[in-house]
Amino acid sequence: MDLQCGQQIVLASASPRRRHIFANAGFQVEIDPVLVNETIPPGTEPAAAVQTLALSKAAAVAARYPKGVVVGADTIVYHQRQILEKPHDRAHACHMLQQLSGNWHTVFTGFALIKLAAKLELVRAVATRVKFVPLSKEFIEHYVASGEPLDKAGAYGIQEGGSLLVEQIEGCYFNVMGFPIAAFYLEFQRLFGEHTVADQQD
Amino acid sequence: MDLQCGQQIVLASASPRRRHIFANAGFQVEIDPVLVNETIPPGTEPAAAVQTLALSKAAAVAARYPKGVVVGADTIVYHQRQILEKPHDRAHACHMLQQLSGNWHTVFTGFALIKLAAKLELVRAVATRVKFVPLSKEFIEHYVASGEPLDKAGAYGIQEGGSLLVEQIEGCYFNVMGFPIAAFYLEFQRLFGEHTVADQQD
Repeated sequence: MDLQCGQQIVLASASPRRRHIFANAGFQVEIDPVLVNETIPPGTEPAAAVQTLALSKAAAVAARYPKGVVVGADTIVYHQRQILEKPHDRAHACHMLQQLSGNWHTVFTGFALIKLAAKLELVRAVATRVKFVPLSKEFIEHYVASGEPLDKAGAYGIQEGGSLLVEQIEGCYFNVMGFPIAAFYLEFQRLFGEHTVADQQD
Repeated sequence: MDLQCGQQIVLASASPRRRHIFANAGFQVEIDPVLVNETIPPGTEPAAAVQTLALSKAAAVAARYPKGVVVGADTIVYHQRQILEKPHDRAHACHMLQQLSGNWHTVFTGFALIKLAAKLELVRAVATRVKFVPLSKEFIEHYVASGEPLDKAGAYGIQEGGSLLVEQIEGCYFNVMGFPIAAFYLEFQRLFGEHTVADQQD
């Protein structure tokens, strides 16, 4: 499906997952990855943390595309009042997965949308609950050795080998993967009107 | 991730989604698609219907791989006591999507596993609840015109353009896509033991 949404969308993210989610849904986006300080002060509520970081990312790029819709996002895993970001190394990844094994946790993704020319700024956070199957030590070690967990908040990706880890979720799957595309599209339509579907050229 | 599970797995399904789910999770599978009569007698309970069809598919192929683990599966959408299978045409697809718009429905996938040499046969059904966003007539028409809904139960695929349709789910995402891979893997490990993860060759 192609979505001719009449807006230039710029994704201020280096995440291949986010790029995939947008492309998959039919959006044509430009990518302008940004490096921001992702340190979260201790005690920050998870929904506030991801919204702040998402806005920082969008804001860092927005001035370059005043007429474009610039989108930033940030994803964290929240378990037992602790924010889990990307693991430092393999041992840290194994430790995170042991914590999550057999339990529920919550994934928060914040997204921010800035269109300077229209003085538009919107920030939202979406939460999805995730239940892991019980993981054996052997499985965790094999999964971590595959390298898949190392660049991902909470040390797993729900979309690949991680599909074996997740028994069930409550909420948006793509939010766990890194971007709540359906929630974003609802806001997008609200802001820019119904004219977000192409004429039928196909 | 690679899973060296010590078993030959044969997937009795033509579905590219199912093939993708297995490959994505790290399983190496052989494909032997099978055509069975998919007619579901009126009044059949959804969980029974998908289990019966999954078993028919696995059974149709099992004799060719007596030492292999043959897997069949079937997926339906269930809404207001009606089973929605693949749409007959575009008009039918639009009608299904209008029914599902803004509402909850349930996706049932049945899977069957047969290993003749070990006299093993196992059949399960997994249910996932899915909530759609409200869909405009314009969006439905554009989505159907893309062709994506035509080969899919309930006239949508959650993984592509359909990602914009789904506000939230309760249960397994991959079950909606066509195969509950985590539930399958739990049963698989139970039947064939813990030796389902490769030695770390990577």
